[in-house]
Amino acid sequence: MDEEITSEEDSLKGRPKEITHNEKLLSLKYESLDYDNSENQLFLEEERRMSYLGFRCLEISRWVVCGLIGFLTGLIACFIDIMVEQLTGLKYYVVKENIEKFTAGGGLSISLILWAVLNSAFVMVGAIIVAFFEPIAGGSGIPQIKCYLNGVKIPRVVRLKTLLVKVAGVICSVAGGLVVGKEGPMIHSGAVVAAGVSQGRSTSLKRDFKIFEYFRRDTEKRDFVSAGAAAGVSAAFGAPVGGVLFSLEEAASYWNQMLTWRIFFASMISTFTLNFFLSVYNKNPGELSNPGLINFGSFDRNFLLRNRLWVVISVFVLTCECGGPPGGLLGALFNALNYWLTIFRIRYIHRPCLQVMEAMLVAAVTATVSFIMIYFSNACQPLDVVQGEDYPLQLYCDDGEYNSMATTFFNRPEKSVQNLFHNPPGSYHPLTLGVFTITYFFLACWTYGLAVSAGVFIPSLLIGAAWGRLIGIMLPVFPLQIWADPGKYALIGAAAQLGGIVRMTLSLTVILIEATGNVTYGLPLMLVLMTAKIVGDYFEEGLYDIHIKLQSVPFVHSEAPPTSHWLTAREVMSSPVTSFNRVERVGTIVDLLSNTSTNHNGFPVVVSNANGEEPAKLCGLILRSQLIVLLKHKVFVELARSKLTRRKLQLKDFRDAYPRFPPIQSIHVSQDERECMMDLTEFMNPTPYTVPQETSLPRVYKLFRALGLRHLVVVDDSNRVVGLVTRKDLARYHLGKHGLEELQLAQT
Amino acid sequence: MDEEITSEEDSLKGRPKEITHNEKLLSLKYESLDYDNSENQLFLEEERRMSYLGFRCLEISRWVVCGLIGFLTGLIACFIDIMVEQLTGLKYYVVKENIEKFTAGGGLSISLILWAVLNSAFVMVGAIIVAFFEPIAGGSGIPQIKCYLNGVKIPRVVRLKTLLVKVAGVICSVAGGLVVGKEGPMIHSGAVVAAGVSQGRSTSLKRDFKIFEYFRRDTEKRDFVSAGAAAGVSAAFGAPVGGVLFSLEEAASYWNQMLTWRIFFASMISTFTLNFFLSVYNKNPGELSNPGLINFGSFDRNFLLRNRLWVVISVFVLTCECGGPPGGLLGALFNALNYWLTIFRIRYIHRPCLQVMEAMLVAAVTATVSFIMIYFSNACQPLDVVQGEDYPLQLYCDDGEYNSMATTFFNRPEKSVQNLFHNPPGSYHPLTLGVFTITYFFLACWTYGLAVSAGVFIPSLLIGAAWGRLIGIMLPVFPLQIWADPGKYALIGAAAQLGGIVRMTLSLTVILIEATGNVTYGLPLMLVLMTAKIVGDYFEEGLYDIHIKLQSVPFVHSEAPPTSHWLTAREVMSSPVTSFNRVERVGTIVDLLSNTSTNHNGFPVVVSNANGEEPAKLCGLILRSQLIVLLKHKVFVELARSKLTRRKLQLKDFRDAYPRFPPIQSIHVSQDERECMMDLTEFMNPTPYTVPQETSLPRVYKLFRALGLRHLVVVDDSNRVVGLVTRKDLARYHLGKHGLEELQLAQT
Repeated sequence: MDEEITSEEDSLKGRPKEITHNEKLLSLKYESLDYDNSENQLFLEEERRMSYLGFRCLEISRWVVCGLIGFLTGLIACFIDIMVEQLTGLKYYVVKENIEKFTAGGGLSISLILWAVLNSAFVMVGAIIVAFFEPIAGGSGIPQIKCYLNGVKIPRVVRLKTLLVKVAGVICSVAGGLVVGKEGPMIHSGAVVAAGVSQGRSTSLKRDFKIFEYFRRDTEKRDFVSAGAAAGVSAAFGAPVGGVLFSLEEAASYWNQMLTWRIFFASMISTFTLNFFLSVYNKNPGELSNPGLINFGSFDRNFLLRNRLWVVISVFVLTCECGGPPGGLLGALFNALNYWLTIFRIRYIHRPCLQVMEAMLVAAVTATVSFIMIYFSNACQPLDVVQGEDYPLQLYCDDGEYNSMATTFFNRPEKSVQNLFHNPPGSYHPLTLGVFTITYFFLACWTYGLAVSAGVFIPSLLIGAAWGRLIGIMLPVFPLQIWADPGKYALIGAAAQLGGIVRMTLSLTVILIEATGNVTYGLPLMLVLMTAKIVGDYFEEGLYDIHIKLQSVPFVHSEAPPTSHWLTAREVMSSPVTSFNRVERVGTIVDLLSNTSTNHNGFPVVVSNANGEEPAKLCGLILRSQLIVLLKHKVFVELARSKLTRRKLQLKDFRDAYPRFPPIQSIHVSQDERECMMDLTEFMNPTPYTVPQETSLPRVYKLFRALGLRHLVVVDDSNRVVGLVTRKDLARYHLGKHGLEELQLAQT
Repeated sequence: MDEEITSEEDSLKGRPKEITHNEKLLSLKYESLDYDNSENQLFLEEERRMSYLGFRCLEISRWVVCGLIGFLTGLIACFIDIMVEQLTGLKYYVVKENIEKFTAGGGLSISLILWAVLNSAFVMVGAIIVAFFEPIAGGSGIPQIKCYLNGVKIPRVVRLKTLLVKVAGVICSVAGGLVVGKEGPMIHSGAVVAAGVSQGRSTSLKRDFKIFEYFRRDTEKRDFVSAGAAAGVSAAFGAPVGGVLFSLEEAASYWNQMLTWRIFFASMISTFTLNFFLSVYNKNPGELSNPGLINFGSFDRNFLLRNRLWVVISVFVLTCECGGPPGGLLGALFNALNYWLTIFRIRYIHRPCLQVMEAMLVAAVTATVSFIMIYFSNACQPLDVVQGEDYPLQLYCDDGEYNSMATTFFNRPEKSVQNLFHNPPGSYHPLTLGVFTITYFFLACWTYGLAVSAGVFIPSLLIGAAWGRLIGIMLPVFPLQIWADPGKYALIGAAAQLGGIVRMTLSLTVILIEATGNVTYGLPLMLVLMTAKIVGDYFEEGLYDIHIKLQSVPFVHSEAPPTSHWLTAREVMSSPVTSFNRVERVGTIVDLLSNTSTNHNGFPVVVSNANGEEPAKLCGLILRSQLIVLLKHKVFVELARSKLTRRKLQLKDFRDAYPRFPPIQSIHVSQDERECMMDLTEFMNPTPYTVPQETSLPRVYKLFRALGLRHLVVVDDSNRVVGLVTRKDLARYHLGKHGLEELQLAQT
């Protein structure tokens, strides 16, 4: 069993001992989270004891926690931003000096080497901490948070160590010049902050502040993690509403008004904190012009040419036809390439040192490619056209001119995006944009999935903005131009490319609208994202979904596949079910819990009939974690009789053990104790949700998903247990190219 | 029974025969909507027959319907806006000419009479159509739509006639100079459009287009009505995201990603349509600067004074302390006054002609008060300060000056709000603002609840903006000023006042952010709305909630009261339950359905045991409407045997009867037929959701609300029916000042 656990952990770290990359499999290794309260007697007694004032205090502390989450997330975003800016500034300053020194004399290869070495050094640090210390902190973290909010327990995803590695890792990888963004990791960071703050203790630091003990269960923790993820989005894009919608889109099946309002509060605090501290950092305290890490700058409202009414209609046809499909196609290509790359990585590059070397290689290649392109481009532009260029490289251009290729490579990617959106017409040579698009596309694709903390939002936006602007420049050749400003095409292209890769819908539209700061662009953006998604989905899934599938995570989507009405609970459920009696022998419980072949987490509790022949009637549901706490505290009927003074088990004992319940192997039960009896009545959930056997799959799905269940008991017409529906039973069915498909279940 | 129906309808029209205004009552007269599909055999067969392509087509038609809803809602908003502008312009032109004619010569009383008569004439038309033709079209319609989305069937609320009266009524009441807005009614209009378009037929016009037949059930219709309401909000405030959140806040307990995405689409189309057609109307096609009916104008981002860092903290304390509490207090006062006024109206002014006369009186008084205030104010301002004043009144001011009191009264209220936000410091005299606040407050309070179509958003904003600006002007007296621009205080005041009256949270914040067009104001706005709500809730409920309560509507809130854990399904449920056997005698069914004292709508179907003594086991649930269709088509076992060629009853027959199922009295069943048997197996829902008797109220509540149920069967441990939980059983319990209170149920 210890062996098993190790291999499980390894597979989550991205370096499995066995090769488990078949997307037709569904891993049984992942446990679920419980978003349905176990309303047992202890719980009900506590709730009934609590006064109205007590509930008000709880409510207030929920708000306080959300405020803290927002504040800390905003601070972290601010820290990352400032660190990245400082390090990048230093790096570019050194390289620029060096290049200028060697431009005249020849010997630019020294500059190249300097650049590549600097990049590799940064990336090496970032890759080492990720690969060796906390592999779960790699990537953008969005797939992991999606899974967590969906109800899948990803080990170590919300730990303090993960946060530290994530923050340090993202600073290194962005400063290392990789084709990555720092926005995605913010979502993960916010989630970790939330999980930490809301529990009022740190298991890693072994500190318990004895506060917020009420929140120590999956239901409450999930709510706070939603708020943290929203705060992360909010800080990353200056999009508080987008953050709320992101959380809702990924998480909350059950809409709760107060919860959403709190999530919004956390988002608001987060963007405001970031904005405020950045304004202080930029020596403009009070001028709150940086609501997020990325800022699209402001677009004007006159996005239709006047006096040409007929183009008003074609603008939408055009944005859809020109924006969506290429975005969808390029996105699908990106995802497919990344899919094969990831499989290659799982097979051959699963040792940490190899991962670090690959990351350094990518960093060096990125620097080299950038350098070569700058060197050979000769796309000179007069210097005064662009205002506020941070590091204009003159290179071989005339005095008063600068290399326009360099502005896109030799820059922070956020700044490059802004330039592509807002630089006046004529700032870029079409060839520059074309070559840039292609190289950046492949570099970004190679980079995503490396063992570094990094997001894919900014590279996607950058690729899209480049080809969008290219289209905008090329269009006057045809009599099709509707905008004078190629920057608007860049915006549409950026949205299309991002939508084609990540395939988010509602939240992405709102995030982009908020980043653009202009609701007038809402409809074109929405249409582009929609067509990009439709076109992209035809070929390949979204990037996050691919990575979730490659991990064989049992992900329950928001609705059952449409053609699944012919399936009923009877076909879907797991059966036979291991049940306990209301008063059960300790030995039986220990044996069942120790059985590694079944490894169940929820057990129906039944009352047997007098004759005991037919299946017994359901009277409750008990969880493995509850049983383990009971066994640990030796809550046996016989002991309770003998020691009258023994303290009664309380909800607090369960909370203290949460969330790291010990494995059954660590609990010692003597041979005598095995013969004792355990009375489960007080601890089981006496009113689990049930469905009859004939219930259709969509109906089961709806109940399961709407209430965030972990176990749904299937009963016959006399309330006798016939089966149990769990997450994997529902996640198994998905809509493939040839109709409804069933995934296989695998132990790995 | 016919009598009963009439009296029920009357009570909904706001003119009950008996006095039913006790807010401690819960009316049993309201039926519920069914947001849970009845998954009977017919339904499952249809779903199973449908191919994947069929589902895709359905999905596409859902999108088409949402697009249409958005387009038509936008058009209606545009129509209302243009009509109001034309009529108001005409009126003010005539009155202004008249005033200018008589200013010098004396005899301004003639101008006053002209103004009052013009106003009363407009309002008379508006009140007559509402009071005599469609009382449900009165008011803002938001409470009614809230109820509909909550699952309560309000008769005639989504009919074509209601829409026509609403649109004509709102034009008349705004043109008639009443203290009302045209924004609230847009939400109702959007909902009616949605209900009409999605059904593919008009029962009023007796036209059936034979399209969208699949959508003819409560579940689908509700989704479209959500989209319509969102489109309405979107057109009213130029706030597509706010519209989506409004719908979700009021409606969707179950979060569905695709649905939300479609709602967003409808909202986007709606605001874009309005924007586009208004730009064409304003002769600026392509300049999309009117996303909504109300436009706050743009605020700058520098809302904190620089170099005074300590004020940064106080800005929030200030906005909360200065904005929230007065808003909450004034809002509570407004609501309390309106509550007593409404009770007075229910008692004494329930005849249509009286209602029309009251409305005309209010119109005349509004004109008179405005006139008197303009006359006596003498608040002259130089004309050049204000740019683009539509109707500057010189009155007794010097040449080149105008009367500043007149700008607030002698104007469309939307324009007045904008002026208060954006006119430069010094445009208003403090006394003007003070007097204006007081008079407008009482006028608005008197106006809301009249038999005219009118919203309360704009008056609230106007009152708040006036006192907000007043505070902004007065503050320099103390060393507390943080903004140089009193317009920002006006914005905070407007938000506080609106929040204090309507008490919406998330959606209102987002609506205001979108109307302001600047996310930087998000946090202050949110804090103000929050404190206004907290302070206001302490004294009195929100305006919409008061009106819902006065109608004794069984409204199910999103969560159970926190202290209700000691209640279980056993205490809450209705029992005994009237059940049917799987094969039941027609006579029994007809008798039960005709029993006016019970008037149940859902009946558990049971299988009796052999001995038939103990309660029988649950095997399904059938609705009154289904039974009525079965009776109408005489689906009797005996007839089926005799006529083999008889057409089998299909889902289409149920859809054709939807939503106006005939009453049981209209169905003739002969004495012979009474002895026939009906087999319910095929038509009942075989898998209704059930809960055990011991389930706590919050758990029942959660299931009921999350799945949008109408009937929840309570069973014992052998799956025998012991009770039924319906909407009224849950709505009964609410949190009063003294803990949990239980409302009485009343037949009226």
